Amino acid sequence: MIYEGKAKRVYEVVGQPESVIVVYKDDATAFNGAKHASLEGKGVLNLAISTVIFEWLKQAGIASHYIRTLSDREMLVRRVEIVPLEVVIRNRVAGSLAKRLGIAEGVTLTEPFVEWYYKNDDLGDPLVTEAHIRVLGVATPEILASLEAQAQKINQVLRANLHKAGIELVDAKFEFGLTKEGTLILADEISPDTCRFWDTATEEKLDKDRFRRDLGGVMEAYQEILRRIKGVQA
Amino acid sequence: MIYEGKAKRVYEVVGQPESVIVVYKDDATAFNGAKHASLEGKGVLNLAISTVIFEWLKQAGIASHYIRTLSDREMLVRRVEIVPLEVVIRNRVAGSLAKRLGIAEGVTLTEPFVEWYYKNDDLGDPLVTEAHIRVLGVATPEILASLEAQAQKINQVLRANLHKAGIELVDAKFEFGLTKEGTLILADEISPDTCRFWDTATEEKLDKDRFRRDLGGVMEAYQEILRRIKGVQA
Repeated sequence: MIYEGKAKRVYEVVGQPESVIVVYKDDATAFNGAKHASLEGKGVLNLAISTVIFEWLKQAGIASHYIRTLSDREMLVRRVEIVPLEVVIRNRVAGSLAKRLGIAEGVTLTEPFVEWYYKNDDLGDPLVTEAHIRVLGVATPEILASLEAQAQKINQVLRANLHKAGIELVDAKFEFGLTKEGTLILADEISPDTCRFWDTATEEKLDKDRFRRDLGGVMEAYQEILRRIKGVQA
Repeated sequence: MIYEGKAKRVYEVVGQPESVIVVYKDDATAFNGAKHASLEGKGVLNLAISTVIFEWLKQAGIASHYIRTLSDREMLVRRVEIVPLEVVIRNRVAGSLAKRLGIAEGVTLTEPFVEWYYKNDDLGDPLVTEAHIRVLGVATPEILASLEAQAQKINQVLRANLHKAGIELVDAKFEFGLTKEGTLILADEISPDTCRFWDTATEEKLDKDRFRRDLGGVMEAYQEILRRIKGVQA
């Protein structure tokens, strides 16, 4: 094991220095770890959902760290050095954006836009500007431009496919990593833990907000997402 | 009276629809009003300091709302509609920037940069990005470009003149307003309430941080700033 995060463990693969195995755990955390629970089967569901989504992206020609899924909790991925930025793309106002700007949840944004959060637990993953990122030295303006373009493209593909499944993508958090060759690719997972998924018709929340806000039916919602996206022809 | 803020009151002038009188109060507040005190003579000092600084800017050809000072607490200014953004320019790391990025206070920035805060007491004046500002609809990208350019220029003039007074400008908060003719000009005050002033040699704090952090000698520091800048030949 080379790394353990809140929701995943990462293992080296003997004889394959450019790959690692990501193991999806059942831990659920929110509010920078202040709220914590174990939700049986969450890791299995998030892995299955992420697999479908990474396959969609592969078909759309978008590079990611995903190679293949090995078991119900293990994904083989390319080894990358994670850029310590959370790249959040927003299609509608929700969560911290609603609070920050004093705007009602659900308002549709004219154009999707990207926010940067500095991945640092001690600091509570603060929102940062491009000037802040320059000071931190974690990414050059060229890297930010690449991250933003990739996030916009990934968002387009996800929205189109999710729409076919009756799911609206409200916002999503992406993480990217640098390969040994110096290419920036999508990493981490894409799941109801990292995206806001609303039912297109009813606007029912089908994501981690059910856990954050004690709405109940967390695993049922994750199950429903998996059931719906499995049937989508990308 | 047409407006009362935390540190100032604004009065209409009979027969002069394009001017208002700003009265500087002695109230000191910090942390979005959570800390409050009355510091005798603060209004008089801030008005005197602002007057010197607005005169410097006038000599440097920088437009502001300042017309002239009428008494020890009253300044005649052009009537403007305030853009609800705090424009913060930073030369060295301090205050909220140090906390947000986890960087020690005092680190010098390679280049001064601007941050935007949305002026909204209920929301605690949050940091906002240009995308957020677009959503809020409080300023166009063109207005932001103008505000940023003006802030950079004002910062240069202030730094040069303050340097002659043995004062280092660590950061400053500016507010801008739109005149009836549609011109964007510097408004509000420029004082130890709105800037971080450090003694160049000793780095002693000579600004509102003495109040925020209970360092004592608040009014003595403001007096010292006034004493030093009065002697500067701009």
